[in-house]
Amino acid sequence: MSAELARRLLAEALGTALLLATVVGSGVMAAQLAGGNVALALLCNALATAAMLVVLITILGPVSGAHLNPAVSLVMALDRRLAWSAVPPYIAAQLAGAILGVWTAHAMFDLPVLQLSTSVRTGAGQWLGEAVATSGLVLTILGCIVQAPKTTPVAVGLYILAAYWFTSSTSFANPAVTIARALSDTFAGIAPADAPAFIAAQLVGALFGLAAARLLWAAPQSADEAATAR
Amino acid sequence: MSAELARRLLAEALGTALLLATVVGSGVMAAQLAGGNVALALLCNALATAAMLVVLITILGPVSGAHLNPAVSLVMALDRRLAWSAVPPYIAAQLAGAILGVWTAHAMFDLPVLQLSTSVRTGAGQWLGEAVATSGLVLTILGCIVQAPKTTPVAVGLYILAAYWFTSSTSFANPAVTIARALSDTFAGIAPADAPAFIAAQLVGALFGLAAARLLWAAPQSADEAATAR
Amino acid sequence: MSAELARRLLAEALGTALLLATVVGSGVMAAQLAGGNVALALLCNALATAAMLVVLITILGPVSGAHLNPAVSLVMALDRRLAWSAVPPYIAAQLAGAILGVWTAHAMFDLPVLQLSTSVRTGAGQWLGEAVATSGLVLTILGCIVQAPKTTPVAVGLYILAAYWFTSSTSFANPAVTIARALSDTFAGIAPADAPAFIAAQLVGALFGLAAARLLWAAPQSADEAATAR
Amino acid sequence: MSAELARRLLAEALGTALLLATVVGSGVMAAQLAGGNVALALLCNALATAAMLVVLITILGPVSGAHLNPAVSLVMALDRRLAWSAVPPYIAAQLAGAILGVWTAHAMFDLPVLQLSTSVRTGAGQWLGEAVATSGLVLTILGCIVQAPKTTPVAVGLYILAAYWFTSSTSFANPAVTIARALSDTFAGIAPADAPAFIAAQLVGALFGLAAARLLWAAPQSADEAATAR
Repeated sequence: MSAELARRLLAEALGTALLLATVVGSGVMAAQLAGGNVALALLCNALATAAMLVVLITILGPVSGAHLNPAVSLVMALDRRLAWSAVPPYIAAQLAGAILGVWTAHAMFDLPVLQLSTSVRTGAGQWLGEAVATSGLVLTILGCIVQAPKTTPVAVGLYILAAYWFTSSTSFANPAVTIARALSDTFAGIAPADAPAFIAAQLVGALFGLAAARLLWAAPQSADEAATAR
Repeated sequence: MSAELARRLLAEALGTALLLATVVGSGVMAAQLAGGNVALALLCNALATAAMLVVLITILGPVSGAHLNPAVSLVMALDRRLAWSAVPPYIAAQLAGAILGVWTAHAMFDLPVLQLSTSVRTGAGQWLGEAVATSGLVLTILGCIVQAPKTTPVAVGLYILAAYWFTSSTSFANPAVTIARALSDTFAGIAPADAPAFIAAQLVGALFGLAAARLLWAAPQSADEAATAR
Repeated sequence: MSAELARRLLAEALGTALLLATVVGSGVMAAQLAGGNVALALLCNALATAAMLVVLITILGPVSGAHLNPAVSLVMALDRRLAWSAVPPYIAAQLAGAILGVWTAHAMFDLPVLQLSTSVRTGAGQWLGEAVATSGLVLTILGCIVQAPKTTPVAVGLYILAAYWFTSSTSFANPAVTIARALSDTFAGIAPADAPAFIAAQLVGALFGLAAARLLWAAPQSADEAATAR
Repeated sequence: MSAELARRLLAEALGTALLLATVVGSGVMAAQLAGGNVALALLCNALATAAMLVVLITILGPVSGAHLNPAVSLVMALDRRLAWSAVPPYIAAQLAGAILGVWTAHAMFDLPVLQLSTSVRTGAGQWLGEAVATSGLVLTILGCIVQAPKTTPVAVGLYILAAYWFTSSTSFANPAVTIARALSDTFAGIAPADAPAFIAAQLVGALFGLAAARLLWAAPQSADEAATAR
């Protein structure tokens, strides 16, 4: 492995770890303090997640692209922005980081490190929610890369803030996040049995988002695209 | 229809669909979780809507202008920034997208797709609210286009965040949004009988905003204006 | 009066009107919906006000400076950034706009237009709060103008968001806002008898902020300052 | 002492004072108004703190770097971005400012100026929280400095907003803040006996963050780094 690739994988692993520590940790904190008001807990959870995403994409984007998401890495490969040979190590790094992040959150809140979620999240409505959430995420990322790369961190953060609320599934939109959240029996958890359908819906949504992006931004709009493409 | 116009109409339809899915979907989610605290529900609804607007205008603005609003398209035509021939297809695309977005929100939350709102929203105070809301929206858009086009997405998002709260009508400020929200008997709905007066007030407000903008920004301030005018 | 000065006064009046419509209108809406939770009401009030400030300074700053505040206009004159001859008409426009904005908020919410507040806001703690709030506001504005003028709108909005919470007076920090809020017996009101001490504290704070700014940014830091100075 | 160093120390002292006035003052206000809902109080506290951080780093960053944090000043010295001779006066200015800020908050809210906190904050989970919080803060700052210096203020503000929620300790992440908050028996306080372990965890986290930053951003990425290095 080249030092350059190792650096990119470190960025993906560390970034996904911080993302999951934030998703799970802020969920625990918010649920503990919100006195049973789920809307308030979800608001604090969503704001923390969105804020962290802006930070992570700002500081890690120039290193690895800051995908932090296997669905995004797949789309980038399909769109010739990431070498196919980099996809397996990227996904492995994201998964390892995601799980490490969940365990870190558990340790910070004095909870058992190893857990399995019992939160049922299933049904056609939520699967549609995941597909819509992921297609919108892919549209946001590709739209920014093509037209205004410097706005990507803020746009992705704001998109996820909105998606927490407008999708019925609270927008996991990320297979690594889904698997890792299956390992946490807290506010942000998802029962392991419900994870595969979420991931399938995410991949369908990602492909739909890529197709829509190709219709909307048919050709490179500016020199920015070339500069940010890998 | 040229491929270029088709691409612009796709942007308007898809963008308005995502906007309405957000307005209605986040309203459903927030009202379900807020335990009867309407201020908290409206806060989550407003934050999600504002965040999504920033994203949509960032990624779709370079394609179609990201009006997502018939009143804005009319103002752009009156201000010679949009060809009059493009106004009818723009409005048709916005309406179709808006309705599709509402139906998608219903499907995501396992609600009947076809609904009619029963929320009464009427009275002189709310009509004044809609006129003020829309005039301020037009001022925000034209002020940004003339002086600082890159700030438009954030400024419009923040304006709508404020307008949710300071206008008595929670700021629909958009005829396509008004019609589509009449098709949803949820938190964000408006009874169909109350929609026409809202739309009339929005159009009056839009003209007032355009007049004020012409007084404030009499002549092009910079080369940016020419660049962003269509 | 020159057409140029008239345009600047229109910007100050219209901007201060929208600011006060937001402060008072969002206060009414939030207090009505918050079910007695004052922290939630103040949060919605503060977010709406901060968001509107970012918008107004973005679109009106290039026209008039977007002071929207007699204390700021005085500081700008003392710092040779505004002609002294422009100070009286600026303050008159700000006051007229502020009162018009309060009355518009009342009309939108079907409240009596003419009111006098009965909210007691007094005491050494709150006066210190106003002095601190205004000195921080002046520091924020002058720091941005000298070093990063394009960040002024967001910085002022975020400063006021913080100041709503960290000062005991919820940060009026603006004599025109103080006078206009005395004319509203709603969430944002202040009893007329309590206004003069608030205004005195604001002016003391403004002078303190100006003195601190001169120590911190002794000399122009960049060509930006010359460009934004009037 | 040179006039230049005095100006930098004034910036560190004044900035840390405003930061602590915000942390403690907004905590008092939020706890007083939130009617016992701790999540709501913490949300207002976190938003105010994050907003103020963005402002302070924007206006004071060009003067002193706006560390406002002894752990950050130490990291900057270790990374050869701050002369070692400046570290002791920087830390002294930060401590003096922090304490002055707490006392100012007490005075604004008519509380006894001199207090000692009785809030127990201890345990391995919270110490891990402080280490994680501080390492992430250092990563955020160094990542921005190396790659996108202009985004530092917003990134640090958003990072702290997230860290309030995802760490079990609510992210003090700052030895001067920790000492000063020990002097306030309010929402934001920490019992003096619990402060040393927090500070030790912060210093360990800061070193960990510096090590990770060196792996991620091995060499200067752009001319920006040279420009912002001191």
